[in-house]
Amino acid sequence: MSITPKAHGRQVSDPVAEQVGWSDVDVRAVDTVRTLAADAVQKTGNGHPGTAISLAPAAYLLYQKVMRHDPSDPHWLGRDRFVLSAGHSSLTQYIQLYYSGLLELEDIEALRTWGSKTPGHPEVHHTEGVDLTTGPLGSGVATAVGMAMAQRRQRGLFDPAAAPGESVFDHDVYCIAGDGCMMEGVASEASSLAATQRLGNLTLIYDQNQISIEDDTDVSFSEDVAARYEAYGWDVRVVEWRTKHGVRDEDYVEDVDALYAAIEQGRTVLDKPTFIVLRTVIAWPAPTKQGTGKSHGSALGDDEIKGMKSLLGFDPDKTFDVSDEVLAHVRSVRDRGAELRKGWDERYEAWRSANPEGAALLDRVRAHEVPDGYAEAFPTFEPDDKGLATRAASGKVLTALADVLPELWGGSADLAESNNTTMGGQPSFVPEDRQTSEWQGGPYGRTLHFGVRENAMGMIVNGIALEGLTRPYGGTFLVFSDYMRPAVRLAAIQEADSIFVWTHDSIGLGEDGPTHQPIEHLASLRAIPGLDVVRPADANETAHAWQTILTRHGNPTGIALSRQALPILDPASTSVEQVARGAYVLVEASKQTPDVIVMATGSEVSVAMAGAELLEAQGVATRVVSMPCQEWFAQQDEAYREQVLPKAVRARVSIEAGSTMGWRDYVGDAGRIIGIDHFGASADAKTLFSEFGFTPEAVVEAAKASVAESGDPTPGDTAPGYASKDPGFESSAPAERQEGK
Amino acid sequence: MSITPKAHGRQVSDPVAEQVGWSDVDVRAVDTVRTLAADAVQKTGNGHPGTAISLAPAAYLLYQKVMRHDPSDPHWLGRDRFVLSAGHSSLTQYIQLYYSGLLELEDIEALRTWGSKTPGHPEVHHTEGVDLTTGPLGSGVATAVGMAMAQRRQRGLFDPAAAPGESVFDHDVYCIAGDGCMMEGVASEASSLAATQRLGNLTLIYDQNQISIEDDTDVSFSEDVAARYEAYGWDVRVVEWRTKHGVRDEDYVEDVDALYAAIEQGRTVLDKPTFIVLRTVIAWPAPTKQGTGKSHGSALGDDEIKGMKSLLGFDPDKTFDVSDEVLAHVRSVRDRGAELRKGWDERYEAWRSANPEGAALLDRVRAHEVPDGYAEAFPTFEPDDKGLATRAASGKVLTALADVLPELWGGSADLAESNNTTMGGQPSFVPEDRQTSEWQGGPYGRTLHFGVRENAMGMIVNGIALEGLTRPYGGTFLVFSDYMRPAVRLAAIQEADSIFVWTHDSIGLGEDGPTHQPIEHLASLRAIPGLDVVRPADANETAHAWQTILTRHGNPTGIALSRQALPILDPASTSVEQVARGAYVLVEASKQTPDVIVMATGSEVSVAMAGAELLEAQGVATRVVSMPCQEWFAQQDEAYREQVLPKAVRARVSIEAGSTMGWRDYVGDAGRIIGIDHFGASADAKTLFSEFGFTPEAVVEAAKASVAESGDPTPGDTAPGYASKDPGFESSAPAERQEGK
Repeated sequence: MSITPKAHGRQVSDPVAEQVGWSDVDVRAVDTVRTLAADAVQKTGNGHPGTAISLAPAAYLLYQKVMRHDPSDPHWLGRDRFVLSAGHSSLTQYIQLYYSGLLELEDIEALRTWGSKTPGHPEVHHTEGVDLTTGPLGSGVATAVGMAMAQRRQRGLFDPAAAPGESVFDHDVYCIAGDGCMMEGVASEASSLAATQRLGNLTLIYDQNQISIEDDTDVSFSEDVAARYEAYGWDVRVVEWRTKHGVRDEDYVEDVDALYAAIEQGRTVLDKPTFIVLRTVIAWPAPTKQGTGKSHGSALGDDEIKGMKSLLGFDPDKTFDVSDEVLAHVRSVRDRGAELRKGWDERYEAWRSANPEGAALLDRVRAHEVPDGYAEAFPTFEPDDKGLATRAASGKVLTALADVLPELWGGSADLAESNNTTMGGQPSFVPEDRQTSEWQGGPYGRTLHFGVRENAMGMIVNGIALEGLTRPYGGTFLVFSDYMRPAVRLAAIQEADSIFVWTHDSIGLGEDGPTHQPIEHLASLRAIPGLDVVRPADANETAHAWQTILTRHGNPTGIALSRQALPILDPASTSVEQVARGAYVLVEASKQTPDVIVMATGSEVSVAMAGAELLEAQGVATRVVSMPCQEWFAQQDEAYREQVLPKAVRARVSIEAGSTMGWRDYVGDAGRIIGIDHFGASADAKTLFSEFGFTPEAVVEAAKASVAESGDPTPGDTAPGYASKDPGFESSAPAERQEGK
Repeated sequence: MSITPKAHGRQVSDPVAEQVGWSDVDVRAVDTVRTLAADAVQKTGNGHPGTAISLAPAAYLLYQKVMRHDPSDPHWLGRDRFVLSAGHSSLTQYIQLYYSGLLELEDIEALRTWGSKTPGHPEVHHTEGVDLTTGPLGSGVATAVGMAMAQRRQRGLFDPAAAPGESVFDHDVYCIAGDGCMMEGVASEASSLAATQRLGNLTLIYDQNQISIEDDTDVSFSEDVAARYEAYGWDVRVVEWRTKHGVRDEDYVEDVDALYAAIEQGRTVLDKPTFIVLRTVIAWPAPTKQGTGKSHGSALGDDEIKGMKSLLGFDPDKTFDVSDEVLAHVRSVRDRGAELRKGWDERYEAWRSANPEGAALLDRVRAHEVPDGYAEAFPTFEPDDKGLATRAASGKVLTALADVLPELWGGSADLAESNNTTMGGQPSFVPEDRQTSEWQGGPYGRTLHFGVRENAMGMIVNGIALEGLTRPYGGTFLVFSDYMRPAVRLAAIQEADSIFVWTHDSIGLGEDGPTHQPIEHLASLRAIPGLDVVRPADANETAHAWQTILTRHGNPTGIALSRQALPILDPASTSVEQVARGAYVLVEASKQTPDVIVMATGSEVSVAMAGAELLEAQGVATRVVSMPCQEWFAQQDEAYREQVLPKAVRARVSIEAGSTMGWRDYVGDAGRIIGIDHFGASADAKTLFSEFGFTPEAVVEAAKASVAESGDPTPGDTAPGYASKDPGFESSAPAERQEGK
């Protein structure tokens, strides 16, 4: 075998003509993969057989010959990570997991059916051996970059003295991506950063079959992808299995040695991530549908499958046909895993003995526990005349935590100074001496610079969180949560402990204007299942929110913070326990049963308090509820919820400088919602709050209207009555408020 | 002057040493820009002075010497388009608009204040001369690509016989982008496609100052951007104003001739978009803050500004100081515009005379009117046993419209066959003979291939819509509306007539599983101000929806369509008029005042109808309301809304296979919401609908519960009563439904 010369860039020193050793039974096992992939999709009636067929040797090579993994312990700390960015080709992974003994043949037969271990796309926490949920194209590439970054940081955190390659925390990340992944912007963003970060532990195999759903990718994708990755700064290698685009059988050379050599040579380049362009024909060797869009996302059909089986020397009438010889051979990968594991286990125990503090830290972070002294590390903020932006308070909290939580790290998508995401004094994660070829990795700081790449940031944060030994956060403006929404959703689906810091959280952002002012964002983020959206009212609630978030595990959180200074609440009026319950009585009314409840979040809590003062002065007993997190509140028992929002009090007002959507659930038919359902404007925050009606006076007006509507006894009125109104069509914002822009 | 040699790629034949002719008063005018930019930000107290200062010569060159524009008519059809993708540097554009007479000095002084014509970022429809709202980085680049595509299609539609450069529909698109734009994935996506589309009419000037908010971009952005654009297939030129990164005054050569030559030579390359890397020092020549992050997004401070003014020979104590000589000189650009316009007007009239049909079409599309025979073009679908997916119905509608609406065109982000976005038989927009250098543009089909690039697709559709002479649409799965959310929001902010076709609109997508099944998307899209979200119930409502959408103007629309076949409603039970009202009574109850109203959208309308039949059989008079568009319904008068959803009927059920968020507004305290607030699962659609509780039986159960709750008289119960319940904490989905995944 010989590897196709690199298309671009510097030569690898001493190129090695690696030979993987590929026996006849390996060939048979790979061909068996092809028949299983075709059969599984055919049985279900839908799915993606093409790539699973043509990429079978590559996946087999990784799982059987290259990657460090131990099927007896799929959560092994020292395992290499496999990311199938082309997640639609889930059979590519499932069949290898079957070969590894983590799935059985019946699981392959149950592809894409209710309750199976083999859903349409790979799902972490659902199928043993799957480290990442993929499917949305490009997301796997970006998350793999995060995993590779995490590995480096973990090494630096737990075993900084080890020589490169000799730490138990060293592992590699392998990612398979397709043409679609290469088109998605999120992969571009992450790939650029991966080179800046010199992620030599990352190998990305790009299956360039040039077929996507609209058939030949030429209609939309004519770029030179290898040259693009060269421009990013990757180590780029090209492996030609076909000599030209559109080629069929006759010219196809499935040169596994070439792929193996590219992978192994790439691993020797420690200061660059490796990009391997693997030029394949989709669905090869299916007789008529290879190289066509027809094989991408549909069952091949009986005739085609029989034809392929005949070509490969299989009985065309048998389905899910795995010979005992093949199964015994491939399952021996478990012995390989045990062997790898044995050596690692010894080194791991040696590391534990030599590093008791590191071992204690490792045990703590794996148990998702906080250290002694955790609660005491948080600052308390005393009220003053100036107030404090919650983003500034957040920055102080992060800085205070630096020594207490070494696992905590993060950064911003080029808004660090605005997001206050830098822990004071903590060095950058950017590799030292990036310009020299002698660089061997490290030292690694805790301050991440994501560049202006919000979606990649989110995916990278997810990848770090899913590696599991550190706790990452990433910041941008709340309005740009839109850019990272695919990552936020994947964090929620994967129950990742990602933390998103979203500052400049309302029209309070001010002069930058409507493109930068979030309106619909709080509502639309709350709509994402599993995401906690926390919007603290002041500096102290911000500290309490962080304290709560960092003790939680199993789902992502977004924290929305103000640009503008907010009054600081009396520290005695709030507590960690109250904030952790999601909503609480911040100011009690002058009567045991309030006339009205005013609920608010974030910067509007102080407006609600001012409104309540005016109302009390007018004899309307007003309770103020601070509601920093609706999701946490929903998790409280009914007794607590009733205590905060008693059913008997139907006069309710909510105020939040964002979309009114969702608030009807809390204020009910008789309630009033103060919000903003149109875009903002460019002016200072104070003007905007006044022009758009976020004022104590608006609270008073709304409260009185709700009291009247509710029919609850009002001051001077003891005749209760129910005034029905159409709940659907109240304009929560008076007409004149719509004139803002 | 001489242009810096191209860094990459083929040589332009006969390079011309263009000289722009730059007088002393031009120099003074450019320096005046710098002082104005510094003064404006200083006066407001915040903003982005740095780029406006260092990029002053480039912007001045474009507006005064290069671009075809006529300040007396900023909407001139033949104008070149200017896109400031680095929108934070809005002064770069505002000061040129002031020089062009579209703004006055007082507007510059009013920067970023309430009601001014000079908001923080440029806003189309707000400031004359601004063709695009920018600010979210990268969006301008991607939208500029759409504008350049639109220009080509418009030429092909209205004036296909003209020689290149000789049509009145020819114009160029100039875009200025910064480092941040180059990092954003959306710009990468669009730039790749721009090369495939051979957009020779697009010039992108990349202001490479290597300073962003986190200061030196080296911490996150070490790639070779020029080489990347070369890899995409652009015509790449590099203009060095500084010899190395981090340089200060001494080595800085602001060579305007070199930039001019690069632009003009780029224009001669007709088959490639032009990428000009302009290496600048941010805020040059500010004495101490040039080349630093301090000048990017903050006022420079009095001392720095005075220092710069002194260096430039201005009175340091004067602000907003524009000499009469400069003003007279720059305002003469209006004469240049009038001259350009005169020639164009003559050619335009000649075109109208020679092309009466084209002229009629042009007048019609500019008036936002539909042609005669429009309504008759839409198919009617008769009920049958199989039913029809609404995505399939949508495809039939589009095909039926091909001949009727020549201005309509669109495509998909690599899901055309799934999205049914191709008008049958319509050729691709991909340029012919893309591989040959003789290609001169055209012919251009109407089928767009965006590749797997949802966000770029959205931006491109916006760019086409904002060019204004054609009506574009772009399709993907509803779940991937997340990827294009920044574009959708910008469509809404810009009131662009963009149409987004989102198919596979619920768990009905089936086997692809949770990563591909939208849950929160309908709610989160409805939260975007100004976006109409339409979800038709069947094939006929789909036709009516399209008929409505295409007659509307001034805001974007998303249409959500089913993957799965849906029963076809009796054509007599629905109409264009009813669908256009957003919600209507689809099935009347057996009593004049219904016992309960069941409202539904999309695929759940037929479930609601089946539930209503069961309810009626049990003596519960049930009205079924189809609600294809909440936004359209909200625009109806109160009388109509009361007619559809009478206040007196408090027993209400909504059913929609998506998040429950927002439905409380329609069902009220006594209502029941059937929705799904958790992620889906991989299985066939029928199983999922059953497992997740979207069944007629669930409608019956919910309806009875709501009737009981509402206290309205129920069958066999004549004692009305109000049973209060806490509106906030109903779990709309029974616990067992949460077990799905």
